[in-house]
Amino acid sequence: MSKEKPSIPKGTRDFGPAVVVKRNYIFGVIKRTFEKFGYLPLETPAMEQLSVLTGKYGDEGDQLIFKILNSGDFLNKTKPEDIEQGSKHLTRKISEKALRYDLTVPFARFVVMNRNEITFPFKRYQIQPVWRADRPQKGRYREFYQCDADVVGTNSLLCEAEIVQMINGVLTDLGLTDFTIKINHRGILAGIAEAIGEKGREGDICVAIDKLDKIGQEGVRKELLERGISEEAVTKLEPLYNLSGTNEQILDQLQTILGETAEGKRGLKDLREVWNYLQALQSEALTSKNESGEQRLQLDVTLARGLSYYTGCIFEVKVNNVSMGSISGGGRYDNLTGMFGMPDVSGVGFSFGVDRIYDVLDELQLFPTSSQEGSKVLLVQFDKESEQYALPLLQQLRDAGISAELYPEAAKLKKQMSYADQKSIPYVVLIGSEEIASGKLKLRNMQSGEQQDFTIEEIISNLK
Amino acid sequence: MSKEKPSIPKGTRDFGPAVVVKRNYIFGVIKRTFEKFGYLPLETPAMEQLSVLTGKYGDEGDQLIFKILNSGDFLNKTKPEDIEQGSKHLTRKISEKALRYDLTVPFARFVVMNRNEITFPFKRYQIQPVWRADRPQKGRYREFYQCDADVVGTNSLLCEAEIVQMINGVLTDLGLTDFTIKINHRGILAGIAEAIGEKGREGDICVAIDKLDKIGQEGVRKELLERGISEEAVTKLEPLYNLSGTNEQILDQLQTILGETAEGKRGLKDLREVWNYLQALQSEALTSKNESGEQRLQLDVTLARGLSYYTGCIFEVKVNNVSMGSISGGGRYDNLTGMFGMPDVSGVGFSFGVDRIYDVLDELQLFPTSSQEGSKVLLVQFDKESEQYALPLLQQLRDAGISAELYPEAAKLKKQMSYADQKSIPYVVLIGSEEIASGKLKLRNMQSGEQQDFTIEEIISNLK
Repeated sequence: MSKEKPSIPKGTRDFGPAVVVKRNYIFGVIKRTFEKFGYLPLETPAMEQLSVLTGKYGDEGDQLIFKILNSGDFLNKTKPEDIEQGSKHLTRKISEKALRYDLTVPFARFVVMNRNEITFPFKRYQIQPVWRADRPQKGRYREFYQCDADVVGTNSLLCEAEIVQMINGVLTDLGLTDFTIKINHRGILAGIAEAIGEKGREGDICVAIDKLDKIGQEGVRKELLERGISEEAVTKLEPLYNLSGTNEQILDQLQTILGETAEGKRGLKDLREVWNYLQALQSEALTSKNESGEQRLQLDVTLARGLSYYTGCIFEVKVNNVSMGSISGGGRYDNLTGMFGMPDVSGVGFSFGVDRIYDVLDELQLFPTSSQEGSKVLLVQFDKESEQYALPLLQQLRDAGISAELYPEAAKLKKQMSYADQKSIPYVVLIGSEEIASGKLKLRNMQSGEQQDFTIEEIISNLK
Repeated sequence: MSKEKPSIPKGTRDFGPAVVVKRNYIFGVIKRTFEKFGYLPLETPAMEQLSVLTGKYGDEGDQLIFKILNSGDFLNKTKPEDIEQGSKHLTRKISEKALRYDLTVPFARFVVMNRNEITFPFKRYQIQPVWRADRPQKGRYREFYQCDADVVGTNSLLCEAEIVQMINGVLTDLGLTDFTIKINHRGILAGIAEAIGEKGREGDICVAIDKLDKIGQEGVRKELLERGISEEAVTKLEPLYNLSGTNEQILDQLQTILGETAEGKRGLKDLREVWNYLQALQSEALTSKNESGEQRLQLDVTLARGLSYYTGCIFEVKVNNVSMGSISGGGRYDNLTGMFGMPDVSGVGFSFGVDRIYDVLDELQLFPTSSQEGSKVLLVQFDKESEQYALPLLQQLRDAGISAELYPEAAKLKKQMSYADQKSIPYVVLIGSEEIASGKLKLRNMQSGEQQDFTIEEIISNLK
């Protein structure tokens, strides 16, 4: 056996108890919200057929998929030519499986494979890790959790309105108050392209204005011109970056600009319908404001979102009082399952970025102390006699549903106390000869340092 | 994009909502029990360095590890000779990472990497999938969950007693009543080897008698002789297969047979101490009997368990009223972290086989109906007017903490009802023009078919 100093792969992480408990707190809030809205859990395998994943994420994405080496004598199906043709060619010969790259393609695959058993509209959520061979850097990992909810098989814009509500609900439940839910519509973007005289060029326009936050108006101008958008069109486009007023006022301005384009009409109609749903649902996303006094839900015509498969409403969420990229996003797609030969299934979905949400809650100190799981009380023993005395008490505590531990050895008091301290166990019971004689045990509050004598029954009712 | 009929890799599974909910029920019971005993969650990456895993599971195990192909141009570090030397040699050149094969080695790695931050005794549980390139067959998968709890850094046999209690607690909470927790000790097995004149040969003896259930006494005899155990020794050994009486009586018989061997003495002393702990804890594992009237906890000297790293007590659990292999097992090891150069860390651990437990609960129909998550009520709409009327009611239901859905379109009644039925939604509210006029809504119990008129407030208090 090797005795090397062990390590973990770059870009992966161990999560110790304190972190797992906090992460589970976030997952718990998200799950409860998804379920309150009728979404149910799905789990797919970590390994997918490589052929299922290839070609779904663009050339760059294909490079970032982790491939699994065929087991056994994987070379026995290869010829010398296969090796001469290089890694890319050889991969297909020696690897048939790969690690899940996102949760969207496996979801589409599941829907297609189970189309006859599924009741549509099918609402599912999925919280599982994905793997990408990206260069690791701060906040970017090679293994990370995605947290998706999608509904397929309905065009109803109630789904979009409910997504806004779920985002608002999750973030509010997590204690966040200063965030903005941005919404836009691919029809608006297509309408804009047509209105500025570049009909059909919304793809190039989207890619460029998606970078507005990063490279600024000048940078976007440069990129648009490079992409062959006319100077006249770019000049017409720029005022749209700074539309102001309430959402209703922006919708009215857009009506004037895009009202005559088919796509613009579609976008405006959809967005107005989402607003109507939210109003009927008395949604807090409409009535709440962020700290700078703006509406929490904001129509933002510069929101483009990278993914090419969106066709309708698109969403993105930013926390305003922390420097952090978007923590949630999504949109409607019209043909997700088309990649597997099942056309015309419209759906809409979104996801939460749990690593980013974790960092935000950490920075804003929003993790509740009650999200500390683990033992409520540690029984401290001094010798065989106190251990024997402690054992039935330990059982009584656990029978009462209280997580409890007896330190497993008669170690030094200091060691036992430091164990409680390190594990954040809030109470300690000291069982010495005096306590055994009197039947009154010392209960110590580890935070305040306060100590008081109680019977075991009193301790149980105190801790419950 | 490819339009092939998608599939999932052999030996892997999709878990749809109904199954995930049932699996989560099992995980929930296990987690709550682990935490009640002071065990805290750990999560390690799915990918480990291949060097961390290689050599830890024997030659056969090494073959079954899923290796991950290095990303990018993985051939650029290989020479033609590397390819000529075949798959096994080439693997080391083109793969540096592999999928987790069990949870024990990653746990040992975590302990060694974090030895300076960890407070010992360190009690952790871990519930994550593992991957093995085994030939898939009924009940054997290439991706499956393991569910481990271990404590390292203490020799106290209180840990063994608490493992018996945790096993008993989990299975009882899951509704199982007819199961046997078998316990033995490696010292007993070594003592037996010595007592029959084959000192130091307990390894061979263990491998053979581990198969007693499968190949019977004659088969074991044959294997023992083949392994070079003398006929005399085998003849001395055989009466031990059928020791009878209570555990105390068996301990007494073993005292006579092994009492003079050092290892036998150690085993007997440890086992008696575990019994003393369980008595002081008033453990149900001691007082409960299985359906054939035997004690639930049984000392079984033929229990060997395959894994070579066990050194003290060993456990295995069988459900008696179902034909199924062991659903839980474990034992004490003295040198788990030695593989990474950190000697003398004693620990004891065990795990639950969740796939088998799932099948047992399914067969015995022990899944509670309340483990059905998902919506409590579906609002059925007939037209735009009933949708508008339904939206604020939907919000009221959710605000009251009731999982609720409004069918997102005014589809045919039959379609909406079948949606509720398929998703096992127990209640449906019908909102037609009559109901809107009267303010009394029809609440239908989907199981009984009963229908009654209520106000929304009455419905909320009914469903809560």
